[in-house]
Amino acid sequence: MNHILTRRSIRQYSGRDIEPKLLDRLLTEAARTQTMGNLQLYSVVVTRSVEGKAALAPAHFNQPMVTQAPVVLTICADFRRTSTWAKCRKAEPGYDNLLSFMNAATDALLFTQTFCNLAEEEGLGLCYLGTTIYMPQPIIDALKLPKLVFPVATLTVGWPAEEPPLSDRLPLESFVHNEEYHDPTPADIDRFYTAKEALPENQEFVRINKKETLAQIFTDIRYPKKDNELMSRSFYETLRKQGFVK
Amino acid sequence: MNHILTRRSIRQYSGRDIEPKLLDRLLTEAARTQTMGNLQLYSVVVTRSVEGKAALAPAHFNQPMVTQAPVVLTICADFRRTSTWAKCRKAEPGYDNLLSFMNAATDALLFTQTFCNLAEEEGLGLCYLGTTIYMPQPIIDALKLPKLVFPVATLTVGWPAEEPPLSDRLPLESFVHNEEYHDPTPADIDRFYTAKEALPENQEFVRINKKETLAQIFTDIRYPKKDNELMSRSFYETLRKQGFVK
Repeated sequence: MNHILTRRSIRQYSGRDIEPKLLDRLLTEAARTQTMGNLQLYSVVVTRSVEGKAALAPAHFNQPMVTQAPVVLTICADFRRTSTWAKCRKAEPGYDNLLSFMNAATDALLFTQTFCNLAEEEGLGLCYLGTTIYMPQPIIDALKLPKLVFPVATLTVGWPAEEPPLSDRLPLESFVHNEEYHDPTPADIDRFYTAKEALPENQEFVRINKKETLAQIFTDIRYPKKDNELMSRSFYETLRKQGFVK
Repeated sequence: MNHILTRRSIRQYSGRDIEPKLLDRLLTEAARTQTMGNLQLYSVVVTRSVEGKAALAPAHFNQPMVTQAPVVLTICADFRRTSTWAKCRKAEPGYDNLLSFMNAATDALLFTQTFCNLAEEEGLGLCYLGTTIYMPQPIIDALKLPKLVFPVATLTVGWPAEEPPLSDRLPLESFVHNEEYHDPTPADIDRFYTAKEALPENQEFVRINKKETLAQIFTDIRYPKKDNELMSRSFYETLRKQGFVK
């Protein structure tokens, strides 16, 4: 897994398709990931068609990767298959609740990341679309997801046609705590974030956006409170519609 | 990543310790995983002390791995460090909401799974404890997690002292859908689950527990509705206490 050291998110893909056999092998191998009670509480919808990608694009703010990638994968928390199995076997399923959603979302995300590691090792390029949980309803509509199925991750996948620079990461001490959580002091924050704030591309972001600090780019522009609160409400409402909240 | 084909969860560990240098390298490499806005919305609490493991054990139903593994990792969704950074930089954070929790939980789980893949490739054995979200409050207390930090995954890690059999998996067609979700019919369910139900160990489970079907083991014993609903309420209540719900 040496490729992990040089991995970057890939948003531009060559015209080369992904062979169904290769995709099937990677999905089969990813399913070796640990899963709750070995129930495999996830499903993957594979979108290859032009119309399918066009239907998904608006939910992802029309980011060009969605229509340009040969394959779009939508990975879902799925308690439906398991519940249908139970009903077919004289068992009464009880998975229409928030904990069960979290169990299935966990399974789905762990599976997703093993798939990413495997696909990137194979030389494929991926972009993870966090937008999936911003507006789940249009994705649910486009993919015809029934109750107890909820999209939690989207990957655009293809053969890389770019090699963007490696992104920075915070120092280990900023996110690893020994024995107990150490609440960061202002001095800690300076030590953790100074290198990131000093990067020329980040300083340029601040300048272009006429902000004072890099943190303001996130709080005022990229992930503002108002949007988060609005999307929190619709996320919860969609959980209810999909049957995970009463 | 050929190791993925033969991976199994490991619950018994040799007496050998995990060198801090090795653990730090694996955690550093795992942090190459994609993350929302490159904010790294996670933290890891490393428990090596006997007292620390003893304090965590009850939250995990006293499963013996917790006290026997040389290292226990609790991976948390963490919007605190980012929010503190914002406050130190004249920015107003707005991450005390459900969407932000999901964003951070996603980051934390993707990071967790890259760590698992790296550690297993290194020859380490791991067990993922899904119990983490069953009773988050005692974990929060034991690790002194402040607001906007929430445990989402626990790994016990050590050098393997067992080689359990590989567990089965459902066929690919049961969890991969082309273009649209295909709701499984009773005939599909038979095709997907017959091999699992026919396994001698599963038939033995059904017999010992005096049940009629394997599905009843899950719905009546392992993950019953009543427990899921109780834990859903306390999960939501703990989200509120940790500041992710108002």
